[in-house]
Amino acid sequence: MAAEILCIGTELLLGNITNGNARWLAEQLAVLGVPHHRQLVVGDNRERLIAEVQAAAERCRVLITTGGLGPTPDDLTTEALAAAFATPLVEHPQVWADIQTRLEARGRPCAASNRRQAWLPEGAALLPNPTGTAPGMIWSPRPGFTILTFPGVPSEMRAMWEATAAPWLQAAGLAEGVFASRMLRFWGVAESNLAEQMADLLAGSNPTVAPYAGAGEVKLRITARAADRAAAEALLAPVEAEIRARAGAACFGADDDSLAAVVLALLRRRGQTLAVAESCTGGGLGAALAAVPGASDVWLGGVIAYANSVKQGLLGVPAAALAGHGAVSDPVAQAMAEGARRATGADWALAITGVAGPVGGSAEKPVGLVHLAVAGPDGCSSEGVRFGASRGRSWIQTLAAGEALNRLRLRLLQA
Amino acid sequence: MAAEILCIGTELLLGNITNGNARWLAEQLAVLGVPHHRQLVVGDNRERLIAEVQAAAERCRVLITTGGLGPTPDDLTTEALAAAFATPLVEHPQVWADIQTRLEARGRPCAASNRRQAWLPEGAALLPNPTGTAPGMIWSPRPGFTILTFPGVPSEMRAMWEATAAPWLQAAGLAEGVFASRMLRFWGVAESNLAEQMADLLAGSNPTVAPYAGAGEVKLRITARAADRAAAEALLAPVEAEIRARAGAACFGADDDSLAAVVLALLRRRGQTLAVAESCTGGGLGAALAAVPGASDVWLGGVIAYANSVKQGLLGVPAAALAGHGAVSDPVAQAMAEGARRATGADWALAITGVAGPVGGSAEKPVGLVHLAVAGPDGCSSEGVRFGASRGRSWIQTLAAGEALNRLRLRLLQA
Repeated sequence: MAAEILCIGTELLLGNITNGNARWLAEQLAVLGVPHHRQLVVGDNRERLIAEVQAAAERCRVLITTGGLGPTPDDLTTEALAAAFATPLVEHPQVWADIQTRLEARGRPCAASNRRQAWLPEGAALLPNPTGTAPGMIWSPRPGFTILTFPGVPSEMRAMWEATAAPWLQAAGLAEGVFASRMLRFWGVAESNLAEQMADLLAGSNPTVAPYAGAGEVKLRITARAADRAAAEALLAPVEAEIRARAGAACFGADDDSLAAVVLALLRRRGQTLAVAESCTGGGLGAALAAVPGASDVWLGGVIAYANSVKQGLLGVPAAALAGHGAVSDPVAQAMAEGARRATGADWALAITGVAGPVGGSAEKPVGLVHLAVAGPDGCSSEGVRFGASRGRSWIQTLAAGEALNRLRLRLLQA
Repeated sequence: MAAEILCIGTELLLGNITNGNARWLAEQLAVLGVPHHRQLVVGDNRERLIAEVQAAAERCRVLITTGGLGPTPDDLTTEALAAAFATPLVEHPQVWADIQTRLEARGRPCAASNRRQAWLPEGAALLPNPTGTAPGMIWSPRPGFTILTFPGVPSEMRAMWEATAAPWLQAAGLAEGVFASRMLRFWGVAESNLAEQMADLLAGSNPTVAPYAGAGEVKLRITARAADRAAAEALLAPVEAEIRARAGAACFGADDDSLAAVVLALLRRRGQTLAVAESCTGGGLGAALAAVPGASDVWLGGVIAYANSVKQGLLGVPAAALAGHGAVSDPVAQAMAEGARRATGADWALAITGVAGPVGGSAEKPVGLVHLAVAGPDGCSSEGVRFGASRGRSWIQTLAAGEALNRLRLRLLQA
């Protein structure tokens, strides 16, 4: 095992904060091609810290720590690391001078406790902190085992990583080649079915293919390793092409693409505009479109027709359709979509009306039943979909919005 | 050590996703009073998983795992756990029947790979998954050591925790005393200012008071420990009262209250209705209202006026106001709010128009500038607010929606 991550902080154990540092460091290690198989979180506890560091020294070549470098009594990373390898701490006068200069520049008093931050284990090299007071260190307490320490403040950790640690790791020869990866995104297919369809590819070792399931969306990550980036991309490309060929239109995009962004791009290419008419999603479909920067050249807006009076008043849904079929029905979904086109002048409109629950369902129209309509220059189509009640209101709303976007996407691909 | 958390998934080691599950579980353990000193992340690797679980069995009484319960070949948690304690897997026919029923209800084909999810180690009890196909288990492979497994999908994990695991942990006697906790929720005050205002309470040890910051919202969790629940509540109550007295109207609710739910409840009490008019949030304010079950007796819907043509056409915003002041201005925000009242017949309306970025800002109207209007039976007020560009589009949209709701809340409290 080449590298391990050790995040130190009682606030992580109490669930006060999310461990975004571990995710960021993991991604950086992957980009550098440094294998890493373990992330550990412990609290601000000297004895446990000593035990964990000693255990890590038996397993890995590089230990990356975050947290515990500040001036307060519960910041004990440096001291515990020194104790773990029975090494004395020595003061670095230049570091202490730097800390004083920086605090003075910010108009902060320089507390005696800040002086602790200038002490490092004998033999440790400084890992400079360009944006904060607490420096880290690069220290090999034993041959073949090196510790890199970072503060817990994400911006300081990142700046130190980029300036000093990443180049050090590259030079240290820990990388097993270079990685390239692609995340393919799917809608309208279950994770288990996609996995069966791609079973042979999922069994591959280079590239590896791994499935992820989200709310309605399923993803496959392809990761290839090679001596350089071009070679890794060359390994990745045929697998990506094969997955796309097998999945067909179910694959809607890659990497940072969202369904909303893909639909907006398809419409932009045609010079056409879009509106929405939302009942049970209450604005969730609009919010998904508004999450895409630059949506405004395609997406005009629409109507949140939560109450039937708004369906009638702003969308012109006929009272007879509401009375005869109920608000959750194909005739109402179609009238909502056509009404949104008419009210906004958009080329296309999506309408959603359903039973999001938890109450309001019936035997005929259970919680999770949603009618979706797509209206466009070539007419209007609609369909009832059952998302099931078991996952709850928010899940039904998210799936309904995604499903509406996907129906428009498929219709635009066919047209 | 009572409990440890083990999160399983190569996507965590590659930095593809943030480990939000560990944070959530850590918070729940803290609420239950179950001590927990260690969180570990490993990949989808059978041998490493076996070694880590065997090591955990030497250290802790309860091991909580997330991930690796799906139907795909890289889901190997259950199998690895069984192998770690040399225990055969047995099929639970009822689980397999449930999986088939659920997949059929969703119109999904039932793959052979799904059948693996019905296998549990001999002697393991089912940890039911009310919202997904993959159940977990509660299994004591050795006396004094119990494993609870959860899927990695956060919503499923949470539902399983709340329905089955939390009661089990409470009954298992792992808690050091009984805990009572209350989460107080604040809007319109910075975490650092709230912490200064409550500094003496934050220094307390029983109850403890800990601050959490979210998107606009700040929370204080009060946790008291005592021999029984009534005694813990008695310790908690005076601290809650003191915090509420100091914070005044900045404290909008407790525990599961959302700003939207609080505003809807205030309007429900008055028998009044609400509409929205959204530009830069694009439906996000509506989605926050639609997230509250039973919103429909108060909230009618509204207009997503992303394009100026929709502001004019559906909300009657005067062309002169758009031309003279720009879409992001008090006159337009007020015309949007009044237009939404008129178009829907609602008693109250909230309007949001702003620059969500990342582009479209100017020196005069920078990214993050949002104008909010509240229109009601007693008139319309509006104001420009600068949320700052540094946190990005989604942050600005979330803050704008919350700020609009909070302004209506404060106005309803004063009236």
